[in-house]
Amino acid sequence: MTESPIDGFVAVVPAGGVGSRLWPLSRPERPKFLLDLLGTGTSLLQATLERLAPLTGEVVVVTGAAHANAVLEQCPQLGQADVLAEPSPRDSMAAIALAAAVIEQRMGPRVIGSFAADHVIGDPLAFRAAVRTAVGAAQDGYVVTIGVEPTEPSTAFGYIQVGSEYSEGVERVIAFTEKPDAQTASVMLAGGGYVWNAGMFVVRTDVLLGKLAELQPTLEQGVRRIAAAWDSPQKESVLADVWPTLTRIAIDHAIAEPVAAQGGVAVVQGSFDWRDVGDFASVADILQPDADGVIRVAGSAPVGVVAADGVIAIGVTKALAVVGIEGAVIVETEDAILVTTRASAQLVKDAAKLFQKPGS
Amino acid sequence: MTESPIDGFVAVVPAGGVGSRLWPLSRPERPKFLLDLLGTGTSLLQATLERLAPLTGEVVVVTGAAHANAVLEQCPQLGQADVLAEPSPRDSMAAIALAAAVIEQRMGPRVIGSFAADHVIGDPLAFRAAVRTAVGAAQDGYVVTIGVEPTEPSTAFGYIQVGSEYSEGVERVIAFTEKPDAQTASVMLAGGGYVWNAGMFVVRTDVLLGKLAELQPTLEQGVRRIAAAWDSPQKESVLADVWPTLTRIAIDHAIAEPVAAQGGVAVVQGSFDWRDVGDFASVADILQPDADGVIRVAGSAPVGVVAADGVIAIGVTKALAVVGIEGAVIVETEDAILVTTRASAQLVKDAAKLFQKPGS
Repeated sequence: MTESPIDGFVAVVPAGGVGSRLWPLSRPERPKFLLDLLGTGTSLLQATLERLAPLTGEVVVVTGAAHANAVLEQCPQLGQADVLAEPSPRDSMAAIALAAAVIEQRMGPRVIGSFAADHVIGDPLAFRAAVRTAVGAAQDGYVVTIGVEPTEPSTAFGYIQVGSEYSEGVERVIAFTEKPDAQTASVMLAGGGYVWNAGMFVVRTDVLLGKLAELQPTLEQGVRRIAAAWDSPQKESVLADVWPTLTRIAIDHAIAEPVAAQGGVAVVQGSFDWRDVGDFASVADILQPDADGVIRVAGSAPVGVVAADGVIAIGVTKALAVVGIEGAVIVETEDAILVTTRASAQLVKDAAKLFQKPGS
Repeated sequence: MTESPIDGFVAVVPAGGVGSRLWPLSRPERPKFLLDLLGTGTSLLQATLERLAPLTGEVVVVTGAAHANAVLEQCPQLGQADVLAEPSPRDSMAAIALAAAVIEQRMGPRVIGSFAADHVIGDPLAFRAAVRTAVGAAQDGYVVTIGVEPTEPSTAFGYIQVGSEYSEGVERVIAFTEKPDAQTASVMLAGGGYVWNAGMFVVRTDVLLGKLAELQPTLEQGVRRIAAAWDSPQKESVLADVWPTLTRIAIDHAIAEPVAAQGGVAVVQGSFDWRDVGDFASVADILQPDADGVIRVAGSAPVGVVAADGVIAIGVTKALAVVGIEGAVIVETEDAILVTTRASAQLVKDAAKLFQKPGS
């Protein structure tokens, strides 16, 4: 099957967040999306851009000012103008609205699709087919989200309640729900009619900014002012004035939830394997163990285990033996070693704080 | 208190055993007794010789041929003649009998005391006081063992059943018992009359070799032949002929148990803290944690813990975080890393095998 680009479609890739549960791989100066977390030879950001490439040649990455150069170095396909550097983090709505406003300023109204830089998707063809379907509904004026068919009663994701069909493969969204408790998740999975909210949005820039003008007018006016100055000598001074005034809010709360309540959100159900690689337990879930049950990533040294099932060893440079610790997670970097278990993977963010330099 | 040497007393220090439960610190080429396991600046062997120094200037170390040079390097107080190199390990009776025979050959009958090179003793003064008492009974012809007052119902040691008093501080031994099960150990501790067998023997060389002539005549004749040749040009050829023929047997089975049955063994009860540092759990038991509960030994890097009590970190050179593993044991050496727990410390010997070079 040959895939052709979608005419006029622009991909937006918000690349933010340190990913402190992935310490010591992730650091403030080396955030998660720049890491080759799965040992595939590409960073999560590079894999994201590769996944999007057949859909469009036009990609805008929104990232922190501190990481703009690293993004350009990792992704030579991007030009300087394709990387929008935020002076400081102001949550996802500001990042995506900035991209929408800059794109519209440069090219006029377009359909954009926003896809996080740190997700892992198992079937890129199915993913792109879903995006193609979503673009059609977006052209009709919908805010379109791509939902993922749940395979387990996860409590780690928000859910989307699916309503009536709008067109083939597109349904109207009844509501977004917060991350459920285990019982609620089981009920939702058993009853059907819910998909995981993967945080992917496909929408016309004029629709997005129009909804924003209605729901978050300060934010809309702010990103419009910044976008007008972006490719001009006034950029830095306008950014310095306006950026710190933008409302900190997630796109889910600013747009998805209220617009869904108005009947303006549609969903395309993707049946691809999708992961938000948040901690080492989720890294281990994705990777295949060797014959001895050990998952080895990017290390040069032998790893042996005694009475220890489900060990994952990342980046080890010295012969490593793990004895008697089920699900042990060992991560070695140039300057640090993490020893934990899959069950404790969520607590690693507290370890990151232990060694944080003052002010970082 | 000034301590004077015991006239004519010779200390024998068997220094054998790799200590594979202490991998990766211990290796065939770097056995336990050569390690500074407690981060005190001295190896277990050096500490043993320091402990014995006030008792006598005459010390003989019996060790494997592969380690004779390392012993001489670590212990400049030893001359070449003070280190007896075994061509191969033939258990403790051969080692101690060889020392006894060589000492008697060189100096005539003496009282010797045999003390393992890898034990840790908390109160050297009390230890030496016990040895002084033991020497008196040894001069009277007893095989004298130094027992340690038990502080817990340990199943890790053999026990000595104490009988009637022979002289002040010296009792006759009724019997030696094997390592007991937990219930038996509790009964023995509660009932009293038992002390731990610390494997320390004080005895006249002529008594030891006389008992051996009676109980293990091949062994006695063999070490006599070797001793006669030891300081001569025939040493190597006699060693090569005779050493491989010596019976492999522990001194407990060859001498202590049968001679006790004859009424020929006495015991001095020591009240000093004594440890056989066999694994990392016992290392951790000896050392004091820092304020955060972490035991740090000989590492240059910071160690932090999250939800992990009782962690011990040895030799770490990179910032180490331990998350969610109670009693974790992390050991780093130049070429290897061990990750285990105090509870699994006994299994470390199996990890050592994983990375064993063929033939070593």
